[in-house]
Amino acid sequence: MTQYEFICNECFQHYEPDSKTLRCRTCRGTLSIKYKNMEDKSASLPCGPELTMPMPLPSISHYISLGEGKTPTVRMQKISDQLGIEIFAKLEFMNPTGSFKDRGTAMMISAIKLMGISEIVEDSSGNAGASLAAYASRAGIKAHIFAPSSTPSPKLNQIKIYDSILHTVDGTRDETTRAAEEFVKENSLVYASHNLSPYFVEGTKTFGYEMFNDLEPFPDNIVVPVGNGSLFLGIWKSITEQKNRGVIKNIPKLHCIQALNVNPIASQTPWDKSRISTTVAGGIAVGSPPRKLEVLKVIKDSGGYSDSVTEESIMKWQIKLAKHEGVFCELTSAAAFAGLENLVRKKEIGKGERVLVPVTGSGLKEAFPTN
Amino acid sequence: MTQYEFICNECFQHYEPDSKTLRCRTCRGTLSIKYKNMEDKSASLPCGPELTMPMPLPSISHYISLGEGKTPTVRMQKISDQLGIEIFAKLEFMNPTGSFKDRGTAMMISAIKLMGISEIVEDSSGNAGASLAAYASRAGIKAHIFAPSSTPSPKLNQIKIYDSILHTVDGTRDETTRAAEEFVKENSLVYASHNLSPYFVEGTKTFGYEMFNDLEPFPDNIVVPVGNGSLFLGIWKSITEQKNRGVIKNIPKLHCIQALNVNPIASQTPWDKSRISTTVAGGIAVGSPPRKLEVLKVIKDSGGYSDSVTEESIMKWQIKLAKHEGVFCELTSAAAFAGLENLVRKKEIGKGERVLVPVTGSGLKEAFPTN
Repeated sequence: MTQYEFICNECFQHYEPDSKTLRCRTCRGTLSIKYKNMEDKSASLPCGPELTMPMPLPSISHYISLGEGKTPTVRMQKISDQLGIEIFAKLEFMNPTGSFKDRGTAMMISAIKLMGISEIVEDSSGNAGASLAAYASRAGIKAHIFAPSSTPSPKLNQIKIYDSILHTVDGTRDETTRAAEEFVKENSLVYASHNLSPYFVEGTKTFGYEMFNDLEPFPDNIVVPVGNGSLFLGIWKSITEQKNRGVIKNIPKLHCIQALNVNPIASQTPWDKSRISTTVAGGIAVGSPPRKLEVLKVIKDSGGYSDSVTEESIMKWQIKLAKHEGVFCELTSAAAFAGLENLVRKKEIGKGERVLVPVTGSGLKEAFPTN
Repeated sequence: MTQYEFICNECFQHYEPDSKTLRCRTCRGTLSIKYKNMEDKSASLPCGPELTMPMPLPSISHYISLGEGKTPTVRMQKISDQLGIEIFAKLEFMNPTGSFKDRGTAMMISAIKLMGISEIVEDSSGNAGASLAAYASRAGIKAHIFAPSSTPSPKLNQIKIYDSILHTVDGTRDETTRAAEEFVKENSLVYASHNLSPYFVEGTKTFGYEMFNDLEPFPDNIVVPVGNGSLFLGIWKSITEQKNRGVIKNIPKLHCIQALNVNPIASQTPWDKSRISTTVAGGIAVGSPPRKLEVLKVIKDSGGYSDSVTEESIMKWQIKLAKHEGVFCELTSAAAFAGLENLVRKKEIGKGERVLVPVTGSGLKEAFPTN
């Protein structure tokens, strides 16, 4: 195993990894995985020709996989022409459970299994819950998934079919988190929070590692829909690792897109945590993202921009992607393209620049009227 | 372009390729693509390290892709242990529109686009229609999709969002085909039938080419759910091509699984074409498969077996795959595993043998109750 420890993203205190340490015990900061030697390749994931990613597992045989990752990158010709830039989409909905979450879940569940844990709790707007349920069933781990009762039915059905115990909460995404946290305390269980677990972000890094093979030259911009920001942060971590190794020289700008209705990161004014608001982009309806400070730092360090998009523009782009490019994504994913349009209009992205957008989740997960 | 022609599968007559020739003009046999020189690689698709597949297109730039193919092959450990064999699943639902059909559609739409055709007609139980709608929208081709009105709503919604014109038919899968054929005649349009187009089977061959990289040693058996048999035939064609090239020596047995309710190929007694029956496995509810004789020949030539499965066993296996392996597939795909269980019980597949099963479509395409 590549030796590693947890490190607090705020005060940089170090911790020995375990399943219950999800925040810094001193300052409550979020945690990341820090390898003691990045060049130690005793356990690493292959991410394309000649590129491997160190893993916090003893060997590849401990990695519980459903075939996640290695998603295709496709050119979006018509909308590129419309916006006057070069757009590439990495189709993350082509993961085993239909969203990018599978990258993080595979790593998190592998680590949890290795620790000998047999029962876990998670809260989710749907995609992470479905992903966790699938990998937990594969690993033989009992999972409790908390989700808002307003979650689209395809996602709730998906969670149930994998044999997880679904707890629906009549409340917001943030109230769902609190209900899960209480259940963890009451039952002394392990909280496998994809928002807090350092293993989850570690897994999403594979997206970034794959990018280096997918696109040559490397994109100038990456536009990501952000709720808690696990993919956003995983991409950034992969970029800094590759920069430190000398694999890349120029780093792309990372742009963060949120829904105008729920934009604690992109809002230009202080966000009222008690504010209850909903958005059609349920996957990014996170009012209190624990990794907010990390995301803000990445936007600053990469020279990126954060922006908010209207409900109308999100819905418009879902249709536009299907009709023009043959890509049917969930509304949350469409928000990134609505944001991209804004960024071009505001000249944050210049004419002819290359842009990569992860298409994070499948349109098949939306609740449409039945026939 | 690798030079090719159409060849009748019954009387071996040759035809110059065009968009309207879908059957032999002499004997009404189905048609396949035959390359004049398999070693001419002037246009070929990369299917993994050092393996390419000839294409009926002038160059790779004419290939309209949404990133289909290169699906993962995963071990199914728990059900392998239960059945006493080694089972691998190739997760075809991880294609852009959620089914293996995208392989065939990509090739068919590319050929149609190349011919300058701007409006097409197709009939489908849902998956092929959704696939065609997606690729047609990407190619800028207007598509009319005929589907039974009983098609699960997620598939119908999917067809609609890609901007195709959906024609629902109150009738069986076979009546839907007849309605599409009439519409083609009345409007003098091109019938882009995935069941008849030689380009469609040609596209599904990529599944077979990928197998050679996915599994070492090569599987002893491949178990496929069969409606019309395009994937079944594509796999076989890839195997014979690789055998002729000397890439493989031993050929696997190809087993054909159908639903007991609609089993014109697997039935041991003559099938009554007028019989109206339905199955939960809508993707293989084809009462009059035009390529039936081709499928029967492959079963015989490969030493395979055909079998029929009950509705109960199909439903049981859909749940079992989700709960035990974390794989959520549509009922049609589960039918293959129900068949596999039969084949082991009947000793058609022996203890310890290696088996590959394509998991053809996504569980997200089933209509579940809404919340």
